[in-house]
Amino acid sequence: MRMPIWLEKRASLTPDAVAVESEQNRRITFAELRQRSRSMAAELLNMGVQPEETVACLCDSSLELIALVHSIPYTGAMLMPLNTRLTAPELLYQLQDSQSRVLIYSDSFAHIAAELKQANSMLQILSIHELSNTAAVVDTRLLHDVAADAVYTIMYTSGTTGAPKGVLQSYSNHWSSAIGSMLNLGLTEQDKWLVTVPLFHISGLSILLRSVIYGIPIVLQPKFAPEQANAAIMEQGVTIMSVVSNMLARMLEAMGEARYPQSFRCMLLGGGPAPLALLQACVERGIPVMQTYGMTETCSQFATLSPQYMLSKLGSAGKPLFQSELRIVSSGVELPTGQAGEIVVRGPNVTSGYFNRDAKDSFIDGWLHTGDIGYVDQEGFLYVLDRRKDLIISGGENVYPAEIEAVLAGHPAVLEAGVAAIADQAWGQRPVAFVVLRAGEAFAEGELLDYCRARLAKYKLPAEIYAVAELPRNAAGKLLRRELLALLPQ
Amino acid sequence: MRMPIWLEKRASLTPDAVAVESEQNRRITFAELRQRSRSMAAELLNMGVQPEETVACLCDSSLELIALVHSIPYTGAMLMPLNTRLTAPELLYQLQDSQSRVLIYSDSFAHIAAELKQANSMLQILSIHELSNTAAVVDTRLLHDVAADAVYTIMYTSGTTGAPKGVLQSYSNHWSSAIGSMLNLGLTEQDKWLVTVPLFHISGLSILLRSVIYGIPIVLQPKFAPEQANAAIMEQGVTIMSVVSNMLARMLEAMGEARYPQSFRCMLLGGGPAPLALLQACVERGIPVMQTYGMTETCSQFATLSPQYMLSKLGSAGKPLFQSELRIVSSGVELPTGQAGEIVVRGPNVTSGYFNRDAKDSFIDGWLHTGDIGYVDQEGFLYVLDRRKDLIISGGENVYPAEIEAVLAGHPAVLEAGVAAIADQAWGQRPVAFVVLRAGEAFAEGELLDYCRARLAKYKLPAEIYAVAELPRNAAGKLLRRELLALLPQ
Repeated sequence: MRMPIWLEKRASLTPDAVAVESEQNRRITFAELRQRSRSMAAELLNMGVQPEETVACLCDSSLELIALVHSIPYTGAMLMPLNTRLTAPELLYQLQDSQSRVLIYSDSFAHIAAELKQANSMLQILSIHELSNTAAVVDTRLLHDVAADAVYTIMYTSGTTGAPKGVLQSYSNHWSSAIGSMLNLGLTEQDKWLVTVPLFHISGLSILLRSVIYGIPIVLQPKFAPEQANAAIMEQGVTIMSVVSNMLARMLEAMGEARYPQSFRCMLLGGGPAPLALLQACVERGIPVMQTYGMTETCSQFATLSPQYMLSKLGSAGKPLFQSELRIVSSGVELPTGQAGEIVVRGPNVTSGYFNRDAKDSFIDGWLHTGDIGYVDQEGFLYVLDRRKDLIISGGENVYPAEIEAVLAGHPAVLEAGVAAIADQAWGQRPVAFVVLRAGEAFAEGELLDYCRARLAKYKLPAEIYAVAELPRNAAGKLLRRELLALLPQ
Repeated sequence: MRMPIWLEKRASLTPDAVAVESEQNRRITFAELRQRSRSMAAELLNMGVQPEETVACLCDSSLELIALVHSIPYTGAMLMPLNTRLTAPELLYQLQDSQSRVLIYSDSFAHIAAELKQANSMLQILSIHELSNTAAVVDTRLLHDVAADAVYTIMYTSGTTGAPKGVLQSYSNHWSSAIGSMLNLGLTEQDKWLVTVPLFHISGLSILLRSVIYGIPIVLQPKFAPEQANAAIMEQGVTIMSVVSNMLARMLEAMGEARYPQSFRCMLLGGGPAPLALLQACVERGIPVMQTYGMTETCSQFATLSPQYMLSKLGSAGKPLFQSELRIVSSGVELPTGQAGEIVVRGPNVTSGYFNRDAKDSFIDGWLHTGDIGYVDQEGFLYVLDRRKDLIISGGENVYPAEIEAVLAGHPAVLEAGVAAIADQAWGQRPVAFVVLRAGEAFAEGELLDYCRARLAKYKLPAEIYAVAELPRNAAGKLLRRELLALLPQ
């Protein structure tokens, strides 16, 4: 099965529609984006880039990076977007593991790119600025279509264990993700999607692809700032935004008594279940929140909870999107409704595997084993209890950090909370909690423990609670629980 | 690739949403429709229906027929909906050609079903009424998913030459058609689609499938009546309707000075280009018309013209939908922009071929040769000049009936027009025209010929023009040009 190149098709359908609104209200149309991407593709071919080879990029969010993402299909190559927060050794590992020969970098990473080049003399490096500064070309070498099952992007993820692995994301995976999301969210001529999440994560990259498939503009804000994001919704006509819960909490704090316009129709909330207090604040302000469950391996959203269930199905990630299916299994057996086990998933948006890795540990009979723990209630709503790797086992009982965090975040003095395991002689492991207090609030550990005691079984009570200035999060805003213990007093 | 059964998935996502509003405001939800379809599927299995066998139906539009359409995937069989206007010999041909062993019929066709059974004693017949009257069952024989490339429906079409052939329509074909249409039209929570076209044609059947894929209700009106259709738009919240131009003309006549509500967002117009006068009347009344080009082989819409181009691109069918591609070829060579040739198409909505037929005449390198003639302008808009089988060749010049019809329909006295070829000693063929006059208008052939003369090249002028009471149309409302000559005075 062949697919037309998405940007090529979009630019032929609606050439004059706006593709991107970036800083200082710079706007480009789909026709202009096509021209940039075609030129970049020609330049990549001039560098010797071959079909099916990996092109790495280490770039800030920018119009140039968007054009680069869309230039790749014209070349038949695969793009590996590198996380810009990684250290040089981490980057080197991913470059080598993915067999990248070409690295495109933003000027702000020129130094580290040179360092990488020094460590790996085979690496060809070029700044994205130079790549963009090529003249428009008519180049007969550019491809007209792609194979649906060809790999478009490779994204590294740590998975449940071991070294990071490159998730293969095909055109068909990305396409199906965009279609599944549209069937769930709908699509209108007024739609405009705000992107403040990193483009090197699937949360950001997927929005770029949707923009072209749907024919809607994105508003690009390279760094998340709550006031600026609120302004885009209030004044720039944004109708959809992707967030994680601490971004949303900060936006609410920043907006005060203001309200978003009626036209704002979806706050797509990923990265784990949100605390009740946050959702209640959204209900009071009339913000339609869609909570989602997804991962790099499912090319973003896999399940989504509609806003009408925000409170009645608190903690749920909703139901799997139209083309997606899930099962809850334990030791290879499908569990009945209500019982917690490993979440396994299937669908056209699910990766076929990892770059240069045997997929047999992750896939059984075509179902991807996510390593996440959850259950499905009588009405078919998915509850993700926790990432398996974060599971705390205390005295033989499973303790889910997310559950304790949600309770703590419900306390009026607490802005956000993180929970991890400490070793315990008596119980094997016990949970320990870290909280960020709201401005002006004083820390009272005893009161917080009482608050937890009223709401949690005894074996789930944190052994200790610490007040900290901030929680460790990755570039996508996801809480990094395994780094919490570094916050313990020495 | 497996796909979940669409109705099963839909009913799990939004069980309580309305699926169908039929006569007397009878409403059923997706959960209720699922129950009906599951029961019917169990009954079909009880009749001995096997996976991949053809089940024929000869049914009026009804809730029962809708449930039957959705029951098929649970059995793995294929459905062949028969055109209810066919004669017994025509029906027998299709039953035999498609190797149907089971025929489901509406009570109004009991007589003809019995006649078919008499002619073919192997045929098992059952009324859809009886099939519907089975109790709800939990049946472990019902399938949970389907292969994406399995055939869901078979529809007979006469094609360009020869006996009717059964077009194979797979789950993937129908799915891609629904997705392509959604990417073009958008999708909102308020959407509701009015169905007055026959369900045994792809125009009607495709709406049933979209309803379940999108999660939107359909309003079913088994017979088209302009007043009733207008009422559904005015009072029942319909946002989208599928029509052919003479249905639309009759609705405009019936609505007088009334206006549709703002919420009505799309009049999807198929079956050939519409006359200017009709489109102008729609512009005056603020009716957003989307003109489309499609066929049984493309599972409905292939290209669509957005309302903003209704007049500036008069006569165009727009651009191919997102996943679809077209080329204009002649003698195997792709023609440049602006030149007319055969329209060849490719995409995931395009059939893989015909039942029990070699597809090699219709497909070349994966492109379906439609037999239709058209060209693409500088901006990528498709103009379908004519169905090849209707092409008139006069003195070596190609004459397209649709062009002459459009001119005649622009005359104030003419409601609609049809043009066909008569043999001519001097020119080989010449066009002859048939017009239906508006109420109260008198026929003046000379004046009409003058009107044509001012607008058409001499070789395109009709040799004669006749006033007739109505034009021959098929059940979908498409003009049957080859039957026009029967209207000639004896």
